[in-house]
Amino acid sequence: MCRLLVYKGKKSILLGHLITYPSHSIVNQSFDSKLRLDHRRPLNGDGFGVGWYDNEMDKESRITPCIFTSVTPAWNNTNLVRLAEKIKSPLVFAHVRASTSGAVTEANCHPWNYGRIMWMHNGGIAQFDKLKRKLVNVLPEKLFLFVQGSADSEWAFALFLSFLTNPDAERFEYQELKDAMIKTITQLNTWAEELNITEPSLLNFAVTDGASVVCVRYISSKTEEAASLYFSSGTRFECYRPGHYRMIKADRREDMVVIASEPLTFEKADWLTIPTNNVMVITPKLNVLLQPIKDKYYSIDRGLDIKMGEEEVRIPEPMAQLFKVQTEDQLLHHNGGKTTSIVN
Amino acid sequence: MCRLLVYKGKKSILLGHLITYPSHSIVNQSFDSKLRLDHRRPLNGDGFGVGWYDNEMDKESRITPCIFTSVTPAWNNTNLVRLAEKIKSPLVFAHVRASTSGAVTEANCHPWNYGRIMWMHNGGIAQFDKLKRKLVNVLPEKLFLFVQGSADSEWAFALFLSFLTNPDAERFEYQELKDAMIKTITQLNTWAEELNITEPSLLNFAVTDGASVVCVRYISSKTEEAASLYFSSGTRFECYRPGHYRMIKADRREDMVVIASEPLTFEKADWLTIPTNNVMVITPKLNVLLQPIKDKYYSIDRGLDIKMGEEEVRIPEPMAQLFKVQTEDQLLHHNGGKTTSIVN
Amino acid sequence: MCRLLVYKGKKSILLGHLITYPSHSIVNQSFDSKLRLDHRRPLNGDGFGVGWYDNEMDKESRITPCIFTSVTPAWNNTNLVRLAEKIKSPLVFAHVRASTSGAVTEANCHPWNYGRIMWMHNGGIAQFDKLKRKLVNVLPEKLFLFVQGSADSEWAFALFLSFLTNPDAERFEYQELKDAMIKTITQLNTWAEELNITEPSLLNFAVTDGASVVCVRYISSKTEEAASLYFSSGTRFECYRPGHYRMIKADRREDMVVIASEPLTFEKADWLTIPTNNVMVITPKLNVLLQPIKDKYYSIDRGLDIKMGEEEVRIPEPMAQLFKVQTEDQLLHHNGGKTTSIVN
Amino acid sequence: MCRLLVYKGKKSILLGHLITYPSHSIVNQSFDSKLRLDHRRPLNGDGFGVGWYDNEMDKESRITPCIFTSVTPAWNNTNLVRLAEKIKSPLVFAHVRASTSGAVTEANCHPWNYGRIMWMHNGGIAQFDKLKRKLVNVLPEKLFLFVQGSADSEWAFALFLSFLTNPDAERFEYQELKDAMIKTITQLNTWAEELNITEPSLLNFAVTDGASVVCVRYISSKTEEAASLYFSSGTRFECYRPGHYRMIKADRREDMVVIASEPLTFEKADWLTIPTNNVMVITPKLNVLLQPIKDKYYSIDRGLDIKMGEEEVRIPEPMAQLFKVQTEDQLLHHNGGKTTSIVN
Repeated sequence: MCRLLVYKGKKSILLGHLITYPSHSIVNQSFDSKLRLDHRRPLNGDGFGVGWYDNEMDKESRITPCIFTSVTPAWNNTNLVRLAEKIKSPLVFAHVRASTSGAVTEANCHPWNYGRIMWMHNGGIAQFDKLKRKLVNVLPEKLFLFVQGSADSEWAFALFLSFLTNPDAERFEYQELKDAMIKTITQLNTWAEELNITEPSLLNFAVTDGASVVCVRYISSKTEEAASLYFSSGTRFECYRPGHYRMIKADRREDMVVIASEPLTFEKADWLTIPTNNVMVITPKLNVLLQPIKDKYYSIDRGLDIKMGEEEVRIPEPMAQLFKVQTEDQLLHHNGGKTTSIVN
Repeated sequence: MCRLLVYKGKKSILLGHLITYPSHSIVNQSFDSKLRLDHRRPLNGDGFGVGWYDNEMDKESRITPCIFTSVTPAWNNTNLVRLAEKIKSPLVFAHVRASTSGAVTEANCHPWNYGRIMWMHNGGIAQFDKLKRKLVNVLPEKLFLFVQGSADSEWAFALFLSFLTNPDAERFEYQELKDAMIKTITQLNTWAEELNITEPSLLNFAVTDGASVVCVRYISSKTEEAASLYFSSGTRFECYRPGHYRMIKADRREDMVVIASEPLTFEKADWLTIPTNNVMVITPKLNVLLQPIKDKYYSIDRGLDIKMGEEEVRIPEPMAQLFKVQTEDQLLHHNGGKTTSIVN
Repeated sequence: MCRLLVYKGKKSILLGHLITYPSHSIVNQSFDSKLRLDHRRPLNGDGFGVGWYDNEMDKESRITPCIFTSVTPAWNNTNLVRLAEKIKSPLVFAHVRASTSGAVTEANCHPWNYGRIMWMHNGGIAQFDKLKRKLVNVLPEKLFLFVQGSADSEWAFALFLSFLTNPDAERFEYQELKDAMIKTITQLNTWAEELNITEPSLLNFAVTDGASVVCVRYISSKTEEAASLYFSSGTRFECYRPGHYRMIKADRREDMVVIASEPLTFEKADWLTIPTNNVMVITPKLNVLLQPIKDKYYSIDRGLDIKMGEEEVRIPEPMAQLFKVQTEDQLLHHNGGKTTSIVN
Repeated sequence: MCRLLVYKGKKSILLGHLITYPSHSIVNQSFDSKLRLDHRRPLNGDGFGVGWYDNEMDKESRITPCIFTSVTPAWNNTNLVRLAEKIKSPLVFAHVRASTSGAVTEANCHPWNYGRIMWMHNGGIAQFDKLKRKLVNVLPEKLFLFVQGSADSEWAFALFLSFLTNPDAERFEYQELKDAMIKTITQLNTWAEELNITEPSLLNFAVTDGASVVCVRYISSKTEEAASLYFSSGTRFECYRPGHYRMIKADRREDMVVIASEPLTFEKADWLTIPTNNVMVITPKLNVLLQPIKDKYYSIDRGLDIKMGEEEVRIPEPMAQLFKVQTEDQLLHHNGGKTTSIVN
């Protein structure tokens, strides 16, 4: 199974701080991972990709991402190492791949972009071959022709795009992106049901338009665990010694948000588990919103890895921002009963 | 536009003699070609592929081809050079690619195989995007899922396979392969007509099951020229000095047949032009049969590069050119000494 | 033979304007070149590289270049196309390669860097094998170990570095770079003489420390022609229609200098030939200086493509050609309004 | 650290049975290894290579090996998978690489060949940078120029070749290959001593001329453990269920020998540990000879994983372990029925 990383910050970050320098970066995760569900193929050496947006959006380099992909492993890609030392961006997607569907070709490397929208996936659509025809048939011509590879994840991206009013629009509300994400999952579930596919799909998707980010941790099963997904936020991502980073929260400001399959730092407290079957939204202004996907696979008890007693509730941050936004019942559950602002 | 090569012989040939040693081999053609129609992109550096069948067909390596492809140019591929020095085969397909449709990924490199059947294409399906959906829709599920890349040529292969009674059969009659080839072209023409596509398609396809070869030189136009295709046969392919080859015809025996986008030797007399809009079949026993595709684009005068007087016209036309250049007894040899036994 | 390109400007330029957009860019030159001397291998598909310096030199991304290389041809490298659409730099080196020495591996792709110094080469050291041992023996340990590949050009870079007082210095005077360049050529010539190598070497080298650029057009022959090298300067490099560019000179300002193996535009007047066996320097402030290398191969008449009458000859010759074509005030501008201030 | 495999048999074996089919093949070892010493980089994804000799040695494909290398990981290399399904050979070297010295380029992939001699290495020369100059200086010109990459292993190969009377000879006695191997190790040790390098070198080398094989398990330390190396022999290598193999010994015949960094089968009894600091020779007739390297790092007790009682100690020790496990008549068979004929 793959590994993904999302960074969105008020300021640009050097890609190296996310991708190549941390001892437990996504690249190093690619050959030393302990949290994966899939033990059949215990490393991610089947290609990788990084996509990022420019800081300044002038006319020439409009707000489309730049994407760098390769079929050689991330850890020995000289070009990646060099680019990561130089390129800065306020919004980054990175992905290392262990192929589950689709041959190992550049066309099958995440992330993909359609105009300004960028997409990646960690997981797999169960028995994709069975529902591929249905997916192909519902796509409008333009999106049908857009797909270049054979990966389930790229077809899922086309499906997502088909749920947008206008995938070529100049800008998007995050609500539209979030709704399209949920529709994508719903549609995949509907087809699975029609085709009697009972094997669960692992659907950790991330999408952005260069302004908002929508990320989902999802599994189409009420009992099995979704692929892991973590969240961190703070003022800056500090390297306190080579390879070792921590998230600094100065003045309670939240200047950056990181979402990743696995923690990038060894500081446990820096990272919160995103609960299973929830959508997380990072708004253009860097607010973080969390919403459960309350379909038949929803279970309030799942995905929370920290048991919280009464006393924890009083602790403001690091959970502060999550408190801020989860729906009330989740919130009650999560935090043992205080009010807060609810998404949706 | 691409370049292709077919070899079928009674004996195995070292791949090097076809692919890397001749000064005007398919690899050298890839950077020094004068016969191409498409001058926009004057070289074939977008990948290449070689497919071959074993000499001895034991149980382990059943009669499926071995295929070696690469996205780096043929001329600097060390592995290709080394393999070509060692590997021998009685039936070889080779292809160098200049991308017209489909990104430059290994999944888009010719040839492809489906079980024992191997396929390659020189040319392009005009406005493939317009008819892709129709093609996808007629494919049976298995063939729909078989396609891994985005090249029009691979989709045309799937269409071809759909015209076989059983693409997984243990063996095929060459008539079935030839009929499927003609049906493929007919179907593509029908869709082009339905969609008002008037730009002609260049459809030089080659297919084999490891025993017979069917090769077509075709353009869906009554006036424009098809991509070039040449034919040569003889007893052996002799290297008389480094890089320089000629076809030897000893004892009037035909022990090998070569079909290629461009002559491999500098001996003009070694090569015959395959007339435009004709199918050529090499039977398992190495007989060569030629048949015109008499659809709306057929024109008796075309593709014959030698003006024929009245007397020649009386000669049954598909074989006209072969008649013209080859001596009569050669012809008799081709057809087993019987009457000219033209296919159709 | 290879192709190279140097850009230095007061402002950053999008790489695409130099590398991928112009119809006659270095990438398109790689498959459609008419000016090359070497007709044996008529295209540059054996890898390419681009190196550039950041605009803003902050602490994190010190003044070392970022280099992107690939063994696949430039024209079908999706990553190059994407990066060129996004990355801007005030100082760019680009190179497409047709291998003359050294296998086609990334380690043999130009440009190379040592700390802040970047180097590339168009041409070849005649019978390099014969003098390689001598070169290796004179290198200090650090530079001997620095070389990773087998290309003559990379070894020549190590030789160049050995002529710097301190190749790890924080900054360099352009005089030191120029002197080291001339010493490099002199040393290679000395060895060739010692070894009775009479075949001429083609030594078009370019080097930069991120501030100055030193570029040489040189051949170790009094009669044969060096590989081509052109020069252009102006206020901006304008795209007047897709793929078509021209150099604009507004207000007599020289805000950018381009040096290239072949003109990037179809406007003949935009480009001056750099005379054979001359060193060109672009100073940090964008002054352009030209100096003949007056060794045994020097000939005043060579490399000037415009016949000059008696009066011009009197003009100090290194600048002769520039004088000839540029207006006097431009020249003054180049040299800061002073007298012609010829280097040396 | 890398992984290597040697196969020599009376009959050709399909490469797949060694390389891609076994669950614990060298390719699968490349991402699931438990026996490695080097835990810093726990996988071998930095390229691989396979080299093999033809069965029939005709004039055209003289007795030089064919080598296929790639910088992409073995496990997702479609070409490797296809070739392994088709190619058969009586003498195979295979190698997967985790880079310790030398960039990840094809020039740094094992094995290398010089004419008919093929070489690979598992391990690393300690502080190679320090002694590289000494090595380079002792090489004759031809071997100095032969090296294309920067890997310590390729330079060690050149050193080995320099100890042969004539590396271009038509044939070699295995004694000469064995002696050159020991001289190579001795020379590397001498330099290490001169340079006060105390870090031990891991020198598991394998070399063949297409007829004999010489393989060494060595570490320049009296106490530390060498990289693992195993040995198996039998009549045939049988696949009893998909991915699961065992070595069959029918009629006490030894028709094949396999040497590998790690066992290819899960049958412990199939594999013997080659004792640390020993040379193993496979003669053209498939006899297996073992000889300790009795230099300052030699220790009789090391590398023997079976505790031996008094009586065994009397058995000449290099063969002790083989004696211990193999039956006496096997031994006789190994040595052609003669007395134990231990080398040296």
